[in-house]
Amino acid sequence: MALKVQKFGGTSVADIERIKNVADRVINTQNQGDQVVVVLSAMAGVTDSLIALAHEAAETPSARELDVLLSTGEQTTAALLAMMLTHRGYKAKSLLGFQAGILTDMTSGKARIRDIDGARIQELLDQNYIVVVAGFQGRDTVGDITTLGRGGSDTSAVAIASAIKADVCEIYTDVDGVYTTDPRICNKAKKINKISYEEMLEMAILGAKVLQIRSVEFAKKYNVPVHVRSSFNQEEGTMVVNESADMESVVVSGITCDKNEARITLRKVPDQPGISARVFGLLAEAEIMVDMIIQNTRSDGETDLTFTVTKDDFKKAVELSKKAAKEVDAKEIVTADHIAKVSVIGLGMKSNSGVAATMFEALAKENINIRLISTSEIRISCVIEEKYAELAVRVLHTAFGLDQAINE
Amino acid sequence: MALKVQKFGGTSVADIERIKNVADRVINTQNQGDQVVVVLSAMAGVTDSLIALAHEAAETPSARELDVLLSTGEQTTAALLAMMLTHRGYKAKSLLGFQAGILTDMTSGKARIRDIDGARIQELLDQNYIVVVAGFQGRDTVGDITTLGRGGSDTSAVAIASAIKADVCEIYTDVDGVYTTDPRICNKAKKINKISYEEMLEMAILGAKVLQIRSVEFAKKYNVPVHVRSSFNQEEGTMVVNESADMESVVVSGITCDKNEARITLRKVPDQPGISARVFGLLAEAEIMVDMIIQNTRSDGETDLTFTVTKDDFKKAVELSKKAAKEVDAKEIVTADHIAKVSVIGLGMKSNSGVAATMFEALAKENINIRLISTSEIRISCVIEEKYAELAVRVLHTAFGLDQAINE
Repeated sequence: MALKVQKFGGTSVADIERIKNVADRVINTQNQGDQVVVVLSAMAGVTDSLIALAHEAAETPSARELDVLLSTGEQTTAALLAMMLTHRGYKAKSLLGFQAGILTDMTSGKARIRDIDGARIQELLDQNYIVVVAGFQGRDTVGDITTLGRGGSDTSAVAIASAIKADVCEIYTDVDGVYTTDPRICNKAKKINKISYEEMLEMAILGAKVLQIRSVEFAKKYNVPVHVRSSFNQEEGTMVVNESADMESVVVSGITCDKNEARITLRKVPDQPGISARVFGLLAEAEIMVDMIIQNTRSDGETDLTFTVTKDDFKKAVELSKKAAKEVDAKEIVTADHIAKVSVIGLGMKSNSGVAATMFEALAKENINIRLISTSEIRISCVIEEKYAELAVRVLHTAFGLDQAINE
Repeated sequence: MALKVQKFGGTSVADIERIKNVADRVINTQNQGDQVVVVLSAMAGVTDSLIALAHEAAETPSARELDVLLSTGEQTTAALLAMMLTHRGYKAKSLLGFQAGILTDMTSGKARIRDIDGARIQELLDQNYIVVVAGFQGRDTVGDITTLGRGGSDTSAVAIASAIKADVCEIYTDVDGVYTTDPRICNKAKKINKISYEEMLEMAILGAKVLQIRSVEFAKKYNVPVHVRSSFNQEEGTMVVNESADMESVVVSGITCDKNEARITLRKVPDQPGISARVFGLLAEAEIMVDMIIQNTRSDGETDLTFTVTKDDFKKAVELSKKAAKEVDAKEIVTADHIAKVSVIGLGMKSNSGVAATMFEALAKENINIRLISTSEIRISCVIEEKYAELAVRVLHTAFGLDQAINE
């Protein structure tokens, strides 16, 4: 007998028929002798509709009230599933965030879970109930309803799994698991059977949408085994787990490609202390997140300052950069919004020094020019021209031996 | 400065535009220096849509889960109004039933309010907030969400008004107030300016849909002044208050007409003890509510047993009556489903003996035959043939002097 948390996303509960499929799967699990806590998202599209409704009510809706409104989405699916299960003769109860003991901080719209009191869930499990929890929501210390931000149901599920010491947190989604790279770009992409929290985190940050970043952080922190799998078939998906010895033998686990950035360079900036602080201070005031930053000192005693921002922030960032350029006496601004960031990720990099060289060689062989490079302990990212993005992904996929099945 | 509870029904919050009108009215009230607690229903039609959705999920949805689902309706309107008020620069917060301290018993779907802890509402009022409460919902002793049944938002409003000792509970609806009779039947119907709880209760029970029966009971019990008025104009409506000396001078305050009943007679029943108990025992087991009951002893030592049920229960009641007729050896069953119950209501009846005679004479003058009569201290009801219903209402309206404006 295992204790399982099963989380189903918006496409898995998109309508009554799909929720019935979820009921089938949950019932199967219980019939196999397992205990189940189900965590649900809102029906696909509902959250967006509610946001649109809120904007009809007020140009800038109060964040507190938006949370009250949005939380109805998960409340609806949780009630519907619990009804189905009850109707089919199973003991089931829905719990909203506050009933499930999910305590968050007071940041409306993107609250962080502070604590989970799993007592009510545990009590119901002990009485042989299937517990259906509305994902994405909690309550803060004054009893207000809060929501956890986009994809927050993943985090609800992992947090609950941690609180009740579940054997596994299964994340059911519309893909089969985590892939070595995007299968739409590279048809040799393979499903990864097992990946470490660290790698998954890098991949989530770099744009793999299969898991919410915060849920991976949570799983890593509390050591919750996460199983990402499809709600449309019975195949095993990808296990996201603690780093183990065998994992380091795989030098690179995955390749990601992010086309959502743009590059700005301030050229010939006087090489003086405080220049960077002034430029990035302006951007920070405007709440613009800067991703990569590179500073090259030129032979003439001036420097080039290059950075990337998301395409959404690009226009605003260019304006502010022009303002900054004047202030810091930069000679020129160069921008590029047709760029892509290609990254290779792998735990094995820690003990394999040749990864960067392999990456640069593979790209050079195809005459792909590298504009920017940044690295972490288990990741190397290169900014290249956007038109080469897909080619780069395929070339790197081959270069790091991912075309062959891995983890087998 | 007054403390007001303002409740708006489904048609008053049917869409974003109407909710904006509600916002206007609430803001006006605050600008006049009053403190306001707003209680809202779900948008018109939403509760029915949610019930339909529940029946797609399960033939007989769990009552507990139906409450979780239905409560999203009021949650939505409360959040939207609070957003609008906040956006327009007013301090406002929405509270769900459990946050507003509305504690009920555990009867899902038609819970009764046990207690209200008005501390949170009071605290927000003290901080100059407009408090927007989701009507129709509460929480039971184990923390589950409950709903108060159809029209339950009226009861929420009155209960909150009582808990925070509001000066008045204003019920905004799509009519101007309580009328002497249905204006669609009698064009001389007049708006009543002031009516006692007792009279209002009789009128609500007899089918005047303007207030939920339970809300009137609550108002009576806790002496909450209720003001029924239109959300579409600024006119004063009807004050529902404690009986006062001047009220008794009005012999009859209102006339009601209920076409939703049907009549069943068991003829020539042996006049023995226990017969009625057997007949009504069978109906009670089937959860069929019986309204009027009349027993006539015939000269031949047999009796006729006549009673009325709602039209919804009629078919079932006839079946059970046939079964009972066999058991108690009744000779014949006579049924009539084209009947109407016409009632006159008035506090003044207590001290005016001629009301019944006036009523019977007025009907007799039009050759309207009375089939059944029942009375309470402040009401006389006659069952007549359905086709005479409208005529009877108009005749009685004139006979009791209601064609002239009252309370003036």
